[in-house]
Amino acid sequence: MKTDIEIAQEAKLEPIEVIAEKLGLTKDDWEPYGHTKAKVSDKLLQKKANDPDGKIILVTAINPTPAGEGKSTVTVGLGQAMHKIGKNAVIALREPSLGPVMGIKGGAAGGGYSQVLPMEDINLHFTGDLHAITSANNALAALIDNHIQQGNDLNIDPRRIVWKRVIDMNDRALREIVIGLGGPKKGVPRQDGFNITVASEIMAILCLSTGIDDLKERLSNIVFGYTYDDEPVTVRDLKVEGALTLLLKDAIKPNLVQTIENTPAIIHGGPFANIAHGCNSLIATKTAAKLGDYVITEAGFGADLGAEKFLDIKSRIGDFEPAAVVIVATVRALKMHGGVAKDNLKEENVDALKAGMENLEKHIETVNEFGLPYVVAINKFPTDTENETSFVENWCEERGIKVALTDVFAKGGEGGIDLAKAVVEQIDTAESNFKRLYDLDMSLEDKIRTIATKVYGAADVDFSLPAKKQLALYEKLGWGKLPVCMAKTQYSLSDNPALLGRPSGFTINIREARPSIGAGFIVVLTGDVMTMPGLPKQPAALKMDVKEDGKIVGLF
Amino acid sequence: MKTDIEIAQEAKLEPIEVIAEKLGLTKDDWEPYGHTKAKVSDKLLQKKANDPDGKIILVTAINPTPAGEGKSTVTVGLGQAMHKIGKNAVIALREPSLGPVMGIKGGAAGGGYSQVLPMEDINLHFTGDLHAITSANNALAALIDNHIQQGNDLNIDPRRIVWKRVIDMNDRALREIVIGLGGPKKGVPRQDGFNITVASEIMAILCLSTGIDDLKERLSNIVFGYTYDDEPVTVRDLKVEGALTLLLKDAIKPNLVQTIENTPAIIHGGPFANIAHGCNSLIATKTAAKLGDYVITEAGFGADLGAEKFLDIKSRIGDFEPAAVVIVATVRALKMHGGVAKDNLKEENVDALKAGMENLEKHIETVNEFGLPYVVAINKFPTDTENETSFVENWCEERGIKVALTDVFAKGGEGGIDLAKAVVEQIDTAESNFKRLYDLDMSLEDKIRTIATKVYGAADVDFSLPAKKQLALYEKLGWGKLPVCMAKTQYSLSDNPALLGRPSGFTINIREARPSIGAGFIVVLTGDVMTMPGLPKQPAALKMDVKEDGKIVGLF
Repeated sequence: MKTDIEIAQEAKLEPIEVIAEKLGLTKDDWEPYGHTKAKVSDKLLQKKANDPDGKIILVTAINPTPAGEGKSTVTVGLGQAMHKIGKNAVIALREPSLGPVMGIKGGAAGGGYSQVLPMEDINLHFTGDLHAITSANNALAALIDNHIQQGNDLNIDPRRIVWKRVIDMNDRALREIVIGLGGPKKGVPRQDGFNITVASEIMAILCLSTGIDDLKERLSNIVFGYTYDDEPVTVRDLKVEGALTLLLKDAIKPNLVQTIENTPAIIHGGPFANIAHGCNSLIATKTAAKLGDYVITEAGFGADLGAEKFLDIKSRIGDFEPAAVVIVATVRALKMHGGVAKDNLKEENVDALKAGMENLEKHIETVNEFGLPYVVAINKFPTDTENETSFVENWCEERGIKVALTDVFAKGGEGGIDLAKAVVEQIDTAESNFKRLYDLDMSLEDKIRTIATKVYGAADVDFSLPAKKQLALYEKLGWGKLPVCMAKTQYSLSDNPALLGRPSGFTINIREARPSIGAGFIVVLTGDVMTMPGLPKQPAALKMDVKEDGKIVGLF
Repeated sequence: MKTDIEIAQEAKLEPIEVIAEKLGLTKDDWEPYGHTKAKVSDKLLQKKANDPDGKIILVTAINPTPAGEGKSTVTVGLGQAMHKIGKNAVIALREPSLGPVMGIKGGAAGGGYSQVLPMEDINLHFTGDLHAITSANNALAALIDNHIQQGNDLNIDPRRIVWKRVIDMNDRALREIVIGLGGPKKGVPRQDGFNITVASEIMAILCLSTGIDDLKERLSNIVFGYTYDDEPVTVRDLKVEGALTLLLKDAIKPNLVQTIENTPAIIHGGPFANIAHGCNSLIATKTAAKLGDYVITEAGFGADLGAEKFLDIKSRIGDFEPAAVVIVATVRALKMHGGVAKDNLKEENVDALKAGMENLEKHIETVNEFGLPYVVAINKFPTDTENETSFVENWCEERGIKVALTDVFAKGGEGGIDLAKAVVEQIDTAESNFKRLYDLDMSLEDKIRTIATKVYGAADVDFSLPAKKQLALYEKLGWGKLPVCMAKTQYSLSDNPALLGRPSGFTINIREARPSIGAGFIVVLTGDVMTMPGLPKQPAALKMDVKEDGKIVGLF
């Protein structure tokens, strides 16, 4: 089998102007970045305000396991398959973070014959969006510390600055640091730390803004710390929202590329699915909906995290309603949820598969809770046996659940035709009773309880004393009407990553809350959530190279 | 008078493909980045290896003062003026660093009617080169700390890592920090600090590489620290040169833009002129020489710093010989060198001007030392009086020195026609006896002495004990044949920024040396050289904004 990058390098890309033309974009609507990437104008939404919107299809999954689910691959493959059945679909995905690419992943733009291209660029600097976010985030950090250094007119308490610097790298040595050492010319000493760029609130803000004015307003609202008198201090107080907006003037524009089969794909924004909402940008999704009759998009991790946030946060802020959901599962991952160790996944094990189905079952219930039509997609792996795939198909059919086997990794769009047909049929025939899980009028605590019990299946919620105090403070400060953005391990429905399948009777432990007032939500942390990953013993970077002929190897 | 950005926003830019076509570039030779920026292929040099090279004109200056010299403005204006007199000239400049733009400068792409455009992009993220350098620099840092964390097979001494992280921001609080705090999951604690990106050795390396293979070789040679056994450790030892090269695959490509008068300009690379060599990239200069009959380029600060390094380091590594030098001075700056305070510069003061001429005189002697033809350019300011400008002109003419008044800020190319004619005449008629200041065979100490006495006019050189030991170690390690890259205050010929004019009898104090083995030179620090600037009390960022119509303000 060829590697992803070998497949990518053999693909015949169309010039990006051909892709843009097919989408009906005129010259003012887009700018080229090289011959196969483009930025679409952030003003296109305004221009096409009266045009109808395409139908939005959300791709989500069961809880991820080390066995792999291939949610992005299915998303890309489904987009390609829609074209095969004559539907005008546009794919909308997150942009990868460079840190994990250098660490474990080596690449994150789909896989096999369902990839977005040029993967060498998308996985590295792409059009510079993440760098612009890093710059804006760190400009704010430098301006805060400089304000304190230069007299501190705003009375900021250096011990209560909650704004961290960021870097788009897996760099554990920056998790906890002390800055401002070395005397009065080198700043005011304080404890600090770096997050990875995708965990920056500015990433979340960019991904929830519908245009440059909205972006500036949200940036203005960022609460970066507190005064000695316990008052929140905002970017507006510091008067730097203009500079931050300026630094993001191009990053707000969605990026247009294509898949291996020349299907248009918009790749834009990529907030962490734990500390933030884990979906590509709202402006990208809305732009895609103006350009295609169908938009295929995804949300991070399983339906308990990404889909819940997509539906309760992103679609609420963007005021749209998805037409259908695709829930991706693999036989391998379901077997892991059923208790099989990673090393034994190659062996047929229908009993374990049967046991693992309860994880899928719970996510199906969640999607039903939101009242949306859906299709289960079984993403085939070469080691799956006929007995195993039939079992899953039968299980679904017995329950009246629409299911489709897909083989998009090996076959591209061709391998996703059944899924595409099933999705279109669901949209055309199934009833949609979309409702969000909670009303904004509910208290923060009640919102958290609702998600924990209805989506995670928790028996109870336990709030730590600090979390209780924080939530009470936020209610007092007028932030109680915001949605909550849950940070929880992606590996389990519970907050314990070891509990696979469908745990029950568990308590969700709320450790801490953090305000993301610019983004417009309250982050709620359960368990120990890491906002700066580390590199493994053998980082993917060690395998990367540019050969003498300019050929790139080691991105996969 | 209009601001720079107002002038820039009124300019009529040609589509970048028109500029590319005029230069004879074919479709494979370049890629668009938006409609008015492009990247030129790094393989163009190879393709045009047998084509003749244009003549390279180096623009340098007297020691800078707060009065301003406008060296970049003269460089751009001269390029524009060359076209006015029918010469095919290409401008080659450094790319600005974002940090100073947010701090004091607000912008750095020429000024008035001699600017490179689009200044809004050039001053911000441009085509992402500095971000790519930041990424590569910090990937190396993370990989070093990760190597130690994961068992430290290379036996690296964490106390002797000389590789710092970088950020393209003026952030004094990061000058001295402690990283790796918080326990075993958060790295190995050690003292550290951030430099600004333009001070990264990777910036210097990128700017001295002639192509991707050369780049990889230089990256491999970086010495980032020492083992517990005092052995230098390199990027080659860590096996990450491939990943670093991959991160720089696009950054190595020169950027093509245009001036306000549509003159082609290549803007690429911008190493600090103190810790590094302060010139745009070698690949950009060489590419410009393949595309134009004349290349107008500049080097940082005064001739004692930028020009010396351009001639002794860059032109040596690039194996080329400049055709002429332009030495920029202003009446205002010369008056400051003659003892006038900044607040009194508007008043006519021929006596002070006369006294200040000695600074110009020294730089003329330096250019003579290198045996190159030159022209003195007096860059006019509105406050200059007729008596003052005549004085400088007469002073030059009495000594047989070619001089030209320029008014490129107010008049664009038109204001530089006299200068352009003078430069062409010098190239056509004056004798060139180019020789570099020192041979590589000389010891490091002797190289330093040669520069200090011949270029700075020092009476003596004093080496600190640590510096003596370092230089001895470098000779022992086989690095003695490298050129030296002097880090000295730009404000004085001496290492004391307060000594303006032409100080004499002074000693240059060599405080410390640092190896830049990848770049291929030994950095020699005199006095206190800052590699991370700070923000002022009122940062330029406070004035920046994006208005509701998308109009940008506050870059000037």
